Formats: sequence, C-alpha cells, structure tokens
Amino acid sequence: MTYRAEVFVTLKPVVNDPAGLTIRGGLHALGFESVKDVRAGKYLSILLDEADEDQARSRVEEMARQLLANEVIEDFRIELQPEPALAESRGGGPS
Amino acid sequence: MTYRAEVFVTLKPVVNDPAGLTIRGGLHALGFESVKDVRAGKYLSILLDEADEDQARSRVEEMARQLLANEVIEDFRIELQPEPALAESRGGGPS
Repeated sequence: MTYRAEVFVTLKPVVNDPAGLTIRGGLHALGFESVKDVRAGKYLSILLDEADEDQARSRVEEMARQLLANEVIEDFRIELQPEPALAESRGGGPS
Repeated sequence: MTYRAEVFVTLKPVVNDPAGLTIRGGLHALGFESVKDVRAGKYLSILLDEADEDQARSRVEEMARQLLANEVIEDFRIELQPEPALAESRGGGPS
C-alpha cells in the first residue's frame, strides 16, 4: 500500500528564528502591517510503500528523528494518508 | 481578530527538486528503502490581525503571491484558523 506522508518541521518556540523575522520584516515593508509573527519551517512530502498505516507512521517517525528534524531545536508533525491514485484501484476512493 | 495562517510552498511537479532527491538518497542510505519519492518545500506559520476570515485569507494570498512563493516554479496552499488563545476570550472556542 502506498502512503503520502507530510512532515512539518518547525523550530521549537524558544528557539530564535532569523528567517521568520526576516520574512516578517519583508511583509511589513510591503505594507502587510497586520502580521504579528512569522515562523519558518520545512515541509516534506514523502511517498512510501508500507504494509499498513500504523507501520507507515512509525517508519516516518523514525525518518524524522534520524534525518529530517533536529530534535534538539526542532519539533515535527506528521500527517499521513493513502495515496489516492493508487488507493482507487483497490476500490476505495477518497471521500 | 487574530488568525494563524499556515502556508505550504512546494515546487511545481514538473520542476526538479534536488533537495528532495538528496533527502531520498539519505533515507535510502539509512535503510528506509520503502521511500519512493520525496519533495521538499517551505512551511510558514503566520500570525495576523484581520477583521474576518475572508479578509485574512485574501491578505495571506497576497503575501504568498508577492513574497512567500515564486509562482513561476512554486505552488502554495493556505490553511487558516482563529488563534485559539485569543479566540477563547471572545467566547467562541474552535470546534
């Protein structure tokens, strides 16, 4: 079964985020004065073959801990769903 | 009213993604052979004050077009919700 995992990696709230501050400055300079805060992070979309959803999630968590995120300064969040194009052929389309 | 906007910026599917390929190679080297594809992108979390949700969404779309994404090679997606800590004091928590 093929799954699409989305991994969101963000700096922990206590860690300085110079990229976010720079983007906030740029938005203010463009006239977007309503912006109070910007945090910058990474977004990864991973296509993987695993037996079931639990196993896919646990594998992606291992990937995040080992390579995708630096847990000293970063948090990560994972969202997982069956890849629609391949799920359809099994008779179950996305709702 | 304060809103939290999440902006996901990804390379268009036809555009080469060397960062994604490098991450896929790293995952394979670590033994995650089930990974078929990785696409790398940016994740931005933006806190902003706007009168209502429609206006907040439209402002964030402008930000994405003007600064956050390069629409020649990138797509973006926006998710928006009231910021809970501030929404609560108005008597309406998130559902």
